[in-house]
Amino acid sequence: MFRSEDEFVRWLEKLNESPQGREGVRTARGAGGVKLGLGDDAALVSVKEKHELILTTDMSIEGVHFTHGLHPAQAVGHRALARSLSDVAAMGGVPRYVLVSLAISRQAGRDWVARFYHGMRTLARRFGVRLVGGDTAVVPARTMIDVLVAGEVPPGKAVRRSGARAGDLIFASGRLGLSALGLRLLRKQPAGWLESAHALRPGAAGSSAKDERRVAAPLAREAVSAHLYPEPQCALGRFLSRRGLASALIDLSDGLSTDLSRLCAASGVGARLWAAKIPRPGLPGAADSLRLALHGGEDYQLLFTVPPRQAARLPAKFQARPLYNLGEIEAAKGVRLVTVEGKVRTLEPAGWDYFRAGA
Amino acid sequence: MFRSEDEFVRWLEKLNESPQGREGVRTARGAGGVKLGLGDDAALVSVKEKHELILTTDMSIEGVHFTHGLHPAQAVGHRALARSLSDVAAMGGVPRYVLVSLAISRQAGRDWVARFYHGMRTLARRFGVRLVGGDTAVVPARTMIDVLVAGEVPPGKAVRRSGARAGDLIFASGRLGLSALGLRLLRKQPAGWLESAHALRPGAAGSSAKDERRVAAPLAREAVSAHLYPEPQCALGRFLSRRGLASALIDLSDGLSTDLSRLCAASGVGARLWAAKIPRPGLPGAADSLRLALHGGEDYQLLFTVPPRQAARLPAKFQARPLYNLGEIEAAKGVRLVTVEGKVRTLEPAGWDYFRAGA
Repeated sequence: MFRSEDEFVRWLEKLNESPQGREGVRTARGAGGVKLGLGDDAALVSVKEKHELILTTDMSIEGVHFTHGLHPAQAVGHRALARSLSDVAAMGGVPRYVLVSLAISRQAGRDWVARFYHGMRTLARRFGVRLVGGDTAVVPARTMIDVLVAGEVPPGKAVRRSGARAGDLIFASGRLGLSALGLRLLRKQPAGWLESAHALRPGAAGSSAKDERRVAAPLAREAVSAHLYPEPQCALGRFLSRRGLASALIDLSDGLSTDLSRLCAASGVGARLWAAKIPRPGLPGAADSLRLALHGGEDYQLLFTVPPRQAARLPAKFQARPLYNLGEIEAAKGVRLVTVEGKVRTLEPAGWDYFRAGA
Repeated sequence: MFRSEDEFVRWLEKLNESPQGREGVRTARGAGGVKLGLGDDAALVSVKEKHELILTTDMSIEGVHFTHGLHPAQAVGHRALARSLSDVAAMGGVPRYVLVSLAISRQAGRDWVARFYHGMRTLARRFGVRLVGGDTAVVPARTMIDVLVAGEVPPGKAVRRSGARAGDLIFASGRLGLSALGLRLLRKQPAGWLESAHALRPGAAGSSAKDERRVAAPLAREAVSAHLYPEPQCALGRFLSRRGLASALIDLSDGLSTDLSRLCAASGVGARLWAAKIPRPGLPGAADSLRLALHGGEDYQLLFTVPPRQAARLPAKFQARPLYNLGEIEAAKGVRLVTVEGKVRTLEPAGWDYFRAGA
């Protein structure tokens, strides 16, 4: 591992200054709002004038959020940051700075840490977010990560959970349950599966059994990729906020049933969903795709409500990806699901919850 | 424990809205810069116009930073926040907002969590800092806490580690090694010792053995209190920053030898300390008080350098507590200690380091 905390900080600074990782921490004083990064008592940054500051933290815990041997270190770094970026997206804000607290398991090793930061920095760079500080410790137990993201939003433009009103339409930014399906596929597959799946291109010769896999493979890859490298919907969140299109906005981190219930509770309303309208993974082997879409977490798509008078202004697609209308807000509390057969049943929040999970 | 994350958030909101805990989170929109606190995707706050933003995170890990059965839950909450407040003090800033990520051990229980938050909120209130968000999880392993504090400082007023120049005088804001001594006393004493120590008031009748304890007890209490409830030096940090008195500033979290070495490395200078000038616990049983003062961590006093031309403007006391001149900055790299006998020896950084510690 590292011999001292100072050696670790120097290593991290060097990583940040490398051609692939020029976030400009410490070296680029003043550039992009960073006055002072790693290596002092605290980070010193600037917020755009008159803008409001968004602050969010999310933990990623080994054995809870990721499993050693199943989640590559790069994916752990990517996912840890993606969770917080998604929270900023869900406020309609622009993420700016990240601080990482990393309690590294003694078992992890320097290479794991390097790959972890690589995954995080690759995502951070793509979103224009700078790593400006954090804390580090080595622990005998499991690895635990806490990511803080600071973002900004013009005054009054933040979109809350609490603005949904009866009659508003409910939208999701992408297919749901894909991440949960990806995790299931990861768990089922032998080591090296991902590589072999990549080789299964459509049109390759093979038996009929292979034909079925040929169909499934691109979708399977999509599901695994959605699980390992989720894409925070910051551009959409910003678009909805600036155009004033969404009355309420939340990110789907814990599953549709749970997060929609939260949005409804915060807004003092209820909702009706149509099972037939919920976009879900149409993958052979995902016979329970509706269950995955309703309760599977970690999709990090946005869930938002649009007042009827604004609905015409909402594009059918955002950045070439369709926006899905799943249902509508109702005055009566609770969430109701209209099944494909037309029956109405109550939908209880049954997504991810640490307090209920067998953690 | 709690049945669900939502129940936990509601419990926490109620705690914050109680007469003893009216930080105004969520209820006081706009008051004190808080637009939106717990219960949405992220916290939404404001930073004073044209001010720079200070961000710092610090972890507190069971078995590393605190021990179950030795550190009361209130003290764990107090210390976890104090570490980050001290970082803001070390920049000369004013702390404003706090986010707490808490991975609670299943063993901890609801009462522990309540007392933890009580300790944290009591300190937060005293410093005018608002709890605006965080993350929570229940884990099968040890409790782990990460505290993020956001603060602000007028532009150009932040004091860094890197400004010390040869000839500058080195000051500390209080006695050093007190926290390390307090921890030692805590470890040695049977349960209930603190209460009995409180009963040992000067002037109470007793044997000669008791007489010695009578002398020691107030100092012992001071040491234990310094360890369990350290006082971040935010007012002093702000004073030094606003008056432009300090050329470099750091907080003493990991011990004088380590933190002074960091300040010197960042400034590209060295230092000379006089053992006779280092303020330390004059407690019977602390025969190694110099060692405690040099290498004991967690005092959270400020260590700062003052250019000779500014020295006359520095008061002898700040808020009735003396400021101690321990030595001076020299051009030659490394830290040298002049012993009480007048010998000069090299002082290696030997304070706290997670990477070296047997964590």
